[in-house]
Amino acid sequence: MQLLKDMILSEGRIVGTDILKVDSFLNHQIDPRLMEEIGKAFSSIFSSCGVTKVVTLESSGIAPALSTGQQLGVPVIFAKKTASRNLDNDAFLSTVHSFTKGNDYVIRISKKYLKSDDVVLLIDDFLAKGCALKGLIDIVNQSGARIAGAGIVIEKGFQEGGAMIRDMGVRVHSLAIIKEMSEKENHISFADDANV
Amino acid sequence: MQLLKDMILSEGRIVGTDILKVDSFLNHQIDPRLMEEIGKAFSSIFSSCGVTKVVTLESSGIAPALSTGQQLGVPVIFAKKTASRNLDNDAFLSTVHSFTKGNDYVIRISKKYLKSDDVVLLIDDFLAKGCALKGLIDIVNQSGARIAGAGIVIEKGFQEGGAMIRDMGVRVHSLAIIKEMSEKENHISFADDANV
Repeated sequence: MQLLKDMILSEGRIVGTDILKVDSFLNHQIDPRLMEEIGKAFSSIFSSCGVTKVVTLESSGIAPALSTGQQLGVPVIFAKKTASRNLDNDAFLSTVHSFTKGNDYVIRISKKYLKSDDVVLLIDDFLAKGCALKGLIDIVNQSGARIAGAGIVIEKGFQEGGAMIRDMGVRVHSLAIIKEMSEKENHISFADDANV
Repeated sequence: MQLLKDMILSEGRIVGTDILKVDSFLNHQIDPRLMEEIGKAFSSIFSSCGVTKVVTLESSGIAPALSTGQQLGVPVIFAKKTASRNLDNDAFLSTVHSFTKGNDYVIRISKKYLKSDDVVLLIDDFLAKGCALKGLIDIVNQSGARIAGAGIVIEKGFQEGGAMIRDMGVRVHSLAIIKEMSEKENHISFADDANV
């Protein structure tokens, strides 16, 4: 997706070997025009799959998931990271490891909103090691719903998550796959078009 | 907003004296059509205010804020509740008390995205005791930006937050104000139209 790649190149900042900061347009400040285009792209890619629910994880996944749900005309569910008295105890749970924070956390979706006849499109902002996405897949599998695929805004192609999730038989479509990036040279190349 | 009130009446569930569960369409599962109408309503109400940024708090504020930002054509910023190595240390901070969880937490917005010439529309899903909104106002005031007002999806009119924020001189517009609700009688009445 050219608009996204352009914004990654012009506004993204590389920190160390594996952090790409895109908080000016994706996960702290959100560019509404980009988000609309992201929704249209995922909607187009998965339009023939009979999707009935879009599922993501709070917080950064909510914007691209909502935009996609609006285009597809289906409800959006965001998994919660914390227990809340506002969420039923009757929920599907999965434990996710965070490499960023060095801990495990539990994600949950109420059993009321995922049924065995649902067809789920998973959406997330990043795919790196794949832990969060694996947790979402686990939850959807518990519900008996079918997974149409996963739409990822930015995949770090140099980390193992993409291969792991695809090896699980889940169709993954990422709008930008980063092949390599270098803080020192301030250089980013994309897997599907190294010259962008 | 009639669509919202209808959904509160048909799908909302009252728990105890002060909890209204609307997780089937607002803050766990999201109804995309309702969210679009919410964005249009806030955009219309604040259309003449010269808004340059929509500001909310993760996670439940993101969907109505994004929808509003898309209608107004301005960027959306969501304040973060947790420190992250992906967010600059150079941030405006404010401490918020959570009555639900019985603790304090710090919210933050990067100084890069709020400037003194910004005009900010605050958006949140609920206004009850007003602690979260007060924290957002504190952050915007630190930045020197001007506050156009606050757009709230559901205000609990029987709690003190609405009066407190209005007494601070902030224009608050809530799409549904609950005057009273009763779990026992499963009854909800709205402040602006008790017969709805």
